[in-house]
Formats: sequence, structure tokens, C-alpha cells
Amino acid sequence: MTGFDQLWRELRPIGRVAGSGGYQRFSWTPADLSGREWFASTAESVGLSVEVDRNGNQWAWWGAPGAGAVVTGSHLDSVPDGGAFDGPLGVVSSLAAVASLTARGLSPSRPLAVVNFVEEEGARFGLPCLGSRLLTGAVSPSRARDLRDPSGVTWAAAMDAAGLDASGIGADPDRLGLIGTFVELHVEQGRGLVESGSAVGVASAIWPHGRWRFEFAGEANHAGTTRLADRRDPMLTFASTVLGAREQAALAGALATFGRVSVEPNGTNAIASLVRAWLDSRAPDESSLARVVEAVTTLAAERGDRDGVKVTVTAESTTPVVEFNADLRDELAVLIGAGDAAGRAPILPTGAGHDAGVLSAHVPTAMLFVRNPTGVSHAPGEFATPDDCALGVEALSAVLEHLVTR
Amino acid sequence: MTGFDQLWRELRPIGRVAGSGGYQRFSWTPADLSGREWFASTAESVGLSVEVDRNGNQWAWWGAPGAGAVVTGSHLDSVPDGGAFDGPLGVVSSLAAVASLTARGLSPSRPLAVVNFVEEEGARFGLPCLGSRLLTGAVSPSRARDLRDPSGVTWAAAMDAAGLDASGIGADPDRLGLIGTFVELHVEQGRGLVESGSAVGVASAIWPHGRWRFEFAGEANHAGTTRLADRRDPMLTFASTVLGAREQAALAGALATFGRVSVEPNGTNAIASLVRAWLDSRAPDESSLARVVEAVTTLAAERGDRDGVKVTVTAESTTPVVEFNADLRDELAVLIGAGDAAGRAPILPTGAGHDAGVLSAHVPTAMLFVRNPTGVSHAPGEFATPDDCALGVEALSAVLEHLVTR
Repeated sequence: MTGFDQLWRELRPIGRVAGSGGYQRFSWTPADLSGREWFASTAESVGLSVEVDRNGNQWAWWGAPGAGAVVTGSHLDSVPDGGAFDGPLGVVSSLAAVASLTARGLSPSRPLAVVNFVEEEGARFGLPCLGSRLLTGAVSPSRARDLRDPSGVTWAAAMDAAGLDASGIGADPDRLGLIGTFVELHVEQGRGLVESGSAVGVASAIWPHGRWRFEFAGEANHAGTTRLADRRDPMLTFASTVLGAREQAALAGALATFGRVSVEPNGTNAIASLVRAWLDSRAPDESSLARVVEAVTTLAAERGDRDGVKVTVTAESTTPVVEFNADLRDELAVLIGAGDAAGRAPILPTGAGHDAGVLSAHVPTAMLFVRNPTGVSHAPGEFATPDDCALGVEALSAVLEHLVTR
Repeated sequence: MTGFDQLWRELRPIGRVAGSGGYQRFSWTPADLSGREWFASTAESVGLSVEVDRNGNQWAWWGAPGAGAVVTGSHLDSVPDGGAFDGPLGVVSSLAAVASLTARGLSPSRPLAVVNFVEEEGARFGLPCLGSRLLTGAVSPSRARDLRDPSGVTWAAAMDAAGLDASGIGADPDRLGLIGTFVELHVEQGRGLVESGSAVGVASAIWPHGRWRFEFAGEANHAGTTRLADRRDPMLTFASTVLGAREQAALAGALATFGRVSVEPNGTNAIASLVRAWLDSRAPDESSLARVVEAVTTLAAERGDRDGVKVTVTAESTTPVVEFNADLRDELAVLIGAGDAAGRAPILPTGAGHDAGVLSAHVPTAMLFVRNPTGVSHAPGEFATPDDCALGVEALSAVLEHLVTR
């Protein structure tokens, strides 16, 4: 059986955390490797031929690889304690959609591939969309090789340990040149489709966004014996920056979040010597984003001066606004939106980065979103109903059939 | 050779962190076990007989164990990346002082013991002065057995793995009854002696103090797609509480510090679901301390209501004010302060907890402080000059001779 429900049931236990119901599927860990094995064997059972590109992304081809291919897919890795749908919904829907087309004996006029991109979340090595960035040359092989996970393992070492060869990573223009159109289906990460009352929508744009590492360097000392006036406590500067970031985001109609923190020495009775914290910020346009980050940096530095704390800000990754191909977007909205009141599916932006955003700089690219009743994302509460998942597969099947037969 | 300098040189490399120059000597880890071996073999080389009590504390006896004993010592464990002096200075000075008394052929009229208390810092299992608290019955054996380190190892399992028997821990009134007087020498954790211009001082009191665990429970969600209004972000509540705690401490002439934080899921693009943070607070008197903690708790709860974040506060350990035995304090200040301008050594309070504070509820207890030119404590900058260390050993020798021959 290769219907969506069956495939979803098979993938579901892989990397699931007992207790929370969330997932830990970090690139090249045993859970990720199990997911990759499942991808390969499932794709083969549908009659696709599987290969791994130089950057570790998996490709499952219907027909021989060739130019003008229709490519669809998503990723299987997760954030820490992430939900079940972000990534896997796109991979499973792609395999189920292709299985339904092959089962119907459809005869494609161009190649089609389902792709599983590696390290989309950047949860282990810190740089999201690493697989698609490497493929397109958006990140250099040397930088990628040296990315480290929290325990110091490099991307190169982790990839080699998984039986691949990290010496060959980097821009792959030949492969990129095969892609005629890219389509990614993804669970919606908000409630836009709940509000518009549709099960499936089409993406307009991805907000510009980025990650900035803030280092607040003070001086470790004894919490029980050091006078307040003698302290250089970076926790104060950090705390003030967290509140300032929220305020600046609200003023700009943007988003700003500190969700990751690491403290040294992190002892109960020790004033911290160093607080590292990561700002995630996104805004409708690039100048708003730049203004927010600049304002937060200034506030942090000013407060640092008061606290005797040195503040260093490093941009770890920034992604400009992505406007998806307007013709393709409108074409697909009409194609899949016959049942919608407006006669076309809703078109909506997102604040989240995706491999589709990386690819859209190179090839005509579209995204389909499936309704998420909770609006929750990157957490166990992330959800899509079985009915909506089926409608997602149906929409993606229609899109692929349309693209592959034209 | 059993002089201070030699013993200090022997102990110095044990548990030292390359790079920072700080120490990681956590109870029952290889570094701690090396320190314990060093203690036992050094004590034996000075002619003392070493035993381990039911709670894991090491005792080195001069003469047969018996009632009315003079006991001195400190601890060898450290906070994360702690300094070289906090604890070890007292242990090494005790051994050097006893060695000098035995070398002079002094004939004691009562037993003397040097003790190395286990888990004084509470850095691994969260409860400071655990060895002395167990000895005196200030903590129950069942609570102690179940204390867990950050990776989930219990005190009982760690103690058993070190070859001891955690089933026998708990109050030890017979052993406690042997102690006639307890004296702990310690590096000063502030600049009181720098200001008074003396190498050695005597403790008056320990400020009441405690540790409170704050849990800020919100809701994990995607940092890039969740509207500010839809968030329940515990990082905001935590940040506001950090700033509030500092303000309340300043108002009360007290100390309040958040130096330890743990965030779930701690992903760069995930709003935190849970922030755990530990408040360390100390004040000159118990009602001030209670007022500070109450005010911080109220501020946290109020801000939590705004943020949709549930705040839970748990007292992990609280220690009432300790006033050291006044007669003994004055007697020792005169005994060791002949060279001071005032004809007696300075008498000063401290904000830090010590095994001496735990014992002082049961037996006449005194503390000697050795000058710390940096005032830094619980960090690599903690220091005492070789000359001051020698003066500390001289003062402790005089105190022990006085107590053991009367």
C-alpha cells in the first residue's frame, strides 16, 4: 500500500520523543538515517529510482533524470521537540501523489523527482536549508564542512560518518539545471487558511528573516559575596535586550524572538561570565527587518555600557524576501481552487524559510500550504486533519499531473 | 615535604580546565576522586589515620578518634569553572598546619581531625553543604539519595559507583558528638580584608540565603510564523523577572542573582515552551531576604499573567542566618591578631554558605578568612598571595595549637 495514510503511519514513529509526542530528527543522527532509509525503500516500492546527490539530498526519479524535470518534496529533519508535519507532510504527500499518478498509468512527458532535502531546519548545525543552499551554491563548501553541532562535531565528520563523502559537497549546477519547476507542499505555520476556510493555499512570498547571535560578555563572580555595584552581570543585559526586542518588533509589525540561550558557567551561585542568545527576526520587508535588528543591537550595547558588559552581534544567517513566481502561483491557485468560493485557492505569505525559498532564486518555484487548525508550528501541537492531508495530496497530484504532462 | 607550597603544587592540577584556568571538581567525578586520593595519601604521610564516614566525608585523625576533638578542614569540590582557592585553601592549610604541629613534636591533649566535606558547592546535585547537612541530619537520607545531577544520575548511584554505600547515609550523632570545636579556614569572597589591610580575619556571621527555582511555562511555537499577540513566550516573563530581582535586591540592600538558566526546547527558531532559572538571594537578615523573594515572586506572577505564562517557584534550599560562637570568635581574633593595628584580627560577615555554617548549629564553630586581592570568587580570578597563604597557615596553626592543648 502506498496511500498517504499508510506511508504516514510508517514514518510516524521515527524519531518521536516518548512523553512529549514531539520529534528529534537531527541530520545524520540515527533517527534521520532511519527516515532516509524509509524514504529510499518507499520510493523504490513506488517504482522510483533513488540516488543521493553530492550534498546528501535524496532524489527519487520517475523516469530517467533529465532536463525540464518537475521536482517536488520537502525534508524529514525536525527542530528540537518539533511537530510531526513540518517537512514530513511534504515528503509523504509527494510520494503518495506520485504513487497515485503511476497507479493510474499516467504517461509523463518529462522527468519527475521527489526530493528529501537534508538539514532544512538547521537544528543540528545552525544553518537552515543547508542541503538546498549547498546545491545552489548559496553557501560555500568550506563553511558548510566546518559547521559544528553543539557537541563540536562538524558537518563534514557527521556526513562522512553516515557513509557519504563530504569532500564532494558544494554547488551542483548540473543537477540544479535539471529542475524545470519546483513545488513544495508544507503544513501551514499559522492560521491563515483557518481564517479563509480553505484546506489548501498557495504561497505568495517568504518574509525576509535571519538569525543573529548576541554574545553578552561580563565577569563570573560569586553570587553571594559580590556587591551589586561591583558586578558585570551579562544576564541583566540579556534580559533587557529580550524585552527591547519584543518592543521593537511590535513597533515595526515584525517578529523578534530569543528562544535559544546558553550561559557560562551556568552555576546557581555564580554570576554568569557569558550569555549567548540567538535573535530570530522576520519582517514584511527588508528595510523593516534591518531597522528592528539595528534597534535591538543599539539597545543591547547601551544597556551593556551600564552593566559593564561587552555585547557582540554576529549575523549567522540572513535571507532576503522571496517572491514566488507570480505566473506559476496564479496558475496553481486556479488549478487547485475550483472548489473554493473565490474559484481559486487562497494566496498567502509566510514568515518561515523553506528550501523552496532557496530554489526560487534559480527556478520557477511554488509552495502549497495545508491548513493547520492549531496554527502551532515547531512544537508537538502542530497538526493537519486526515481530511485536509488527503485534500493536500489531491491538490499536489493535480499540480504534478499538470506540470509533468504539459 | 608537607609544607603548604608543596601540598598546593600537588593538588593544583587536579580538575583544572585547560584554557580558562578554572576548575571542574564535581563530587564523585574522576577529578573529585583524584582529589580524595590525594587527601588520603597526604594525610597518611603526615601521620594521620584516614577514614570515610557514612556520608562520604573524609576524616584524617591525629590521635585516636574521641570526644572533645578539634576538627578543621573544608572541601575539595568546585563550582563549574570555579577558582583554585574556594575549599582547597582550607584543606591544604589544615594539613600543612597539622604537619607543622606534629613536626614540632607538640603533644595534644585531645584528638584532632582534618575533614574533607563532600559536595559543599552543590554544583553537581544542587544542594550545597550536602556532606555536613547529612552528618548533622539537616537533610533526610531519602531526599539526598534521590538528588539528581543534570544528566539524571542520583546521589545514591554516584556514591555507590565510587565504591561507597549510599544505603548508610544520614544523621550521624555519634560522630557529630566527637566534635568539640570546628574551625574552617577559607579564602575571603570579597574585599573586606583588602579594605582593613589584614591578611587574615575571623567570621562574625553568614547572611541568610537560599536558592529558588523559577519555572516559567509558556507554549512552544514557531518563531517565524506566530503573531506576537498569539504567543505565550516564557522568555519575556523570565527577562522581566531578572530585571525585577536586581531592583528588589538594590532596594533591600540585599543580593539577588539569576546565573543558571535552562530553556526548552532551546531552538533558534522556536519560541520557548519552558524557561527554568534559579534565583540565588542573600540579605543581612531573614526578614529582608523573605521580602526580596516575595517581591520577585509577585513580579514574576504578574508579568506571567500578561504573557500567558505560568510561574511556579520552589525553594530548593534556604539557610537561616548563622551567628558564629561569639566567645570563640573574639578569642581567636585576639589570638591571631597580635600583629594587627587594632591588636585583634578583623571580624567580618560573609554572604556565602559553608559547612562551618551548618555545623555551628551543633558545636562551637569559627571561620578564618584569608585575604583575596581580587575579591573574585567562584571564578578563575579568585586568588590569595603566597605570603597571605603562609600567614593563613600560621594563624590556623596557632588556633589549632591553642585549642588542642587546652
